Amino acid sequence: MWVRTNGTRKAFRTVAFDAERNEVVLIEQRLLPHEFRTVRTKSYQETAEAISNMTVRGAGAIGATAAYGLAQGAREFKGGPPSAFTRHMEKVYRTLANARPTAVDPVNAMRAILDRMRSSRLVGEQQRIAIEAADAFAEEDVNHCRAIGRQGAKLVRNGMKILTHCNAGWLAFVDVGSATAPLYEAQRLRRRFHVYCDETRPRCQGASLTAWELAQQGISHQVIADNAAGLLFARGQIDMVIVGSDRVLGRTGEVANKIGTYTKAVLAHRHKVPFYVAIPLSTIDWGLRSGKLIPIEERNEEEVLSAVGVGLDGRRAQVRIANPGSRAFNPGFDVTPAELITGIITPVGIIPPGELWKRRIQLM
Amino acid sequence: MWVRTNGTRKAFRTVAFDAERNEVVLIEQRLLPHEFRTVRTKSYQETAEAISNMTVRGAGAIGATAAYGLAQGAREFKGGPPSAFTRHMEKVYRTLANARPTAVDPVNAMRAILDRMRSSRLVGEQQRIAIEAADAFAEEDVNHCRAIGRQGAKLVRNGMKILTHCNAGWLAFVDVGSATAPLYEAQRLRRRFHVYCDETRPRCQGASLTAWELAQQGISHQVIADNAAGLLFARGQIDMVIVGSDRVLGRTGEVANKIGTYTKAVLAHRHKVPFYVAIPLSTIDWGLRSGKLIPIEERNEEEVLSAVGVGLDGRRAQVRIANPGSRAFNPGFDVTPAELITGIITPVGIIPPGELWKRRIQLM
Repeated sequence: MWVRTNGTRKAFRTVAFDAERNEVVLIEQRLLPHEFRTVRTKSYQETAEAISNMTVRGAGAIGATAAYGLAQGAREFKGGPPSAFTRHMEKVYRTLANARPTAVDPVNAMRAILDRMRSSRLVGEQQRIAIEAADAFAEEDVNHCRAIGRQGAKLVRNGMKILTHCNAGWLAFVDVGSATAPLYEAQRLRRRFHVYCDETRPRCQGASLTAWELAQQGISHQVIADNAAGLLFARGQIDMVIVGSDRVLGRTGEVANKIGTYTKAVLAHRHKVPFYVAIPLSTIDWGLRSGKLIPIEERNEEEVLSAVGVGLDGRRAQVRIANPGSRAFNPGFDVTPAELITGIITPVGIIPPGELWKRRIQLM
Repeated sequence: MWVRTNGTRKAFRTVAFDAERNEVVLIEQRLLPHEFRTVRTKSYQETAEAISNMTVRGAGAIGATAAYGLAQGAREFKGGPPSAFTRHMEKVYRTLANARPTAVDPVNAMRAILDRMRSSRLVGEQQRIAIEAADAFAEEDVNHCRAIGRQGAKLVRNGMKILTHCNAGWLAFVDVGSATAPLYEAQRLRRRFHVYCDETRPRCQGASLTAWELAQQGISHQVIADNAAGLLFARGQIDMVIVGSDRVLGRTGEVANKIGTYTKAVLAHRHKVPFYVAIPLSTIDWGLRSGKLIPIEERNEEEVLSAVGVGLDGRRAQVRIANPGSRAFNPGFDVTPAELITGIITPVGIIPPGELWKRRIQLM
């Protein structure tokens, strides 16, 4: 997507690969929204470190980063018998998989690359295939997001006011994003609309990342405290809600997403405002039988007790907000039941959550 | 209420008066929760300044501060004809009334004092009456809050988990508070319960002031992001909600309170959790015919775009959270309809919001 940098507008992807120099090129997300910079990882170990230290975050983005990291590692191998290459690749895989041990996307992405590499026994050929496969993986991520955009843009009408929560934007994917994809496509179609970005405490991804994305693309938006959405709903000033998701249950239509999503769905339901969840098909979990079985991560209390931003001196800083000595409860996600969700915006269509299972042959 | 300071526990009021030195004694609320300190205002001008600069905040607290400020000003008059005293008192009144021009409590409090002063024509006598009347006003505020506590404590059962929003605690009154009064009374009765304090972005009065109050009284509590309440409701981990209010409409039972209150009421209603509003009778507005007529203040955008706390160096600091260049929408209050409210906890009983008007003779 577009980024304004030094007075000009330039297209970037969250994750890219410089084949000539064998480097992964990443947007340094820890500096956003206050500074835009890309970083280059010069080895697969550096790529693993970038996943681990949150230089890159978001399911699609870390999947593609691991895929490129694996190809990068394959090409770092400088000769020797095929058995040495196999041992080398095992080390590369382990290093990248351990960078974010609870995430499934890096592992799924790397397995897809390794599968393709098995079509040859020649090391040089496998190295070439690895790059091709990683490129194809990244391209597929972008195409899925674009397809979500085409499906979802049908919902965005002129003059609409749209609420979103957290960041399911292009920074969380290779490009385009999921919840943001319909907005970017609608803007391309020259529709005019306004977006309210929930701040999304405690980590404030809405105020920082989503607001940054929308500002870069020139989309009209305002940041609101998570508390303010209720007043907007009551005043009839929200026409639609679009969020992303970490996991959608194919059997029940339940949606796990950033803490606070459920609250917005309850408000939308009360005020008869449509509530959509935009996802690539890989987000659907066909196995789990109930949202009650989704593990809800309890994160560090300090995230709630403090806030992170940039001080007057322009330096990254953390301030303690809460009473010193008080404890916090900090769940990372909540689960929204299907009855509160109007539709799941997928690359192949907008599907009512209760119909996912019926259509599983088409969606799996 | 109790404050632990230098290792000992001592009782304080938010607003007190040192008659000997003719000084108002206030808790310096701008330093809380990071530092506890009282300040003394040596003149009515300094008292007005303390109201204006938010050393003291909260409806009951600034009412009592203005009452004492008026008495303080009366006693600063050092002789002269009664007409000079009248002119002096007009200046004192104007100075204190202008300290927070949109607040009604200082004006109502001072009118009560001036009314009482009219029972004498002697300056010395009027000075004495002013102090007596200010003391009576402050004492009445405390008694109202204690009565709210006795009424509300009936609702607090052993093992309960209670959600509260913002700060309607003793720091907002002369002592005891409104939403906190049932908690303090229940604790006195040795009931065991747990309180979830909504952080209450953007100004975070829940994380800072309410958490500080509860910690000082030794009440079990945790701070949560405003986003986290939905998960707690869905898990059945909230048994009751108690909040305060800035204005309750006697005709409709609608409740204006800190932004985010409406959202919590909608969640409570969905999960069949009782939702109470604790107020002194002076909070009831008998005139306004609809919550739609309550003006909703739009506050400074910077409150949403930033967060204020204490940095690693222990100094008060502000950090910018949001994308630089993005704007915010920052409404200060929302309005909760009567249908979502179980009862209004008043000093004279717990009243369903729809019955306020019917019982107005008793309540006015």
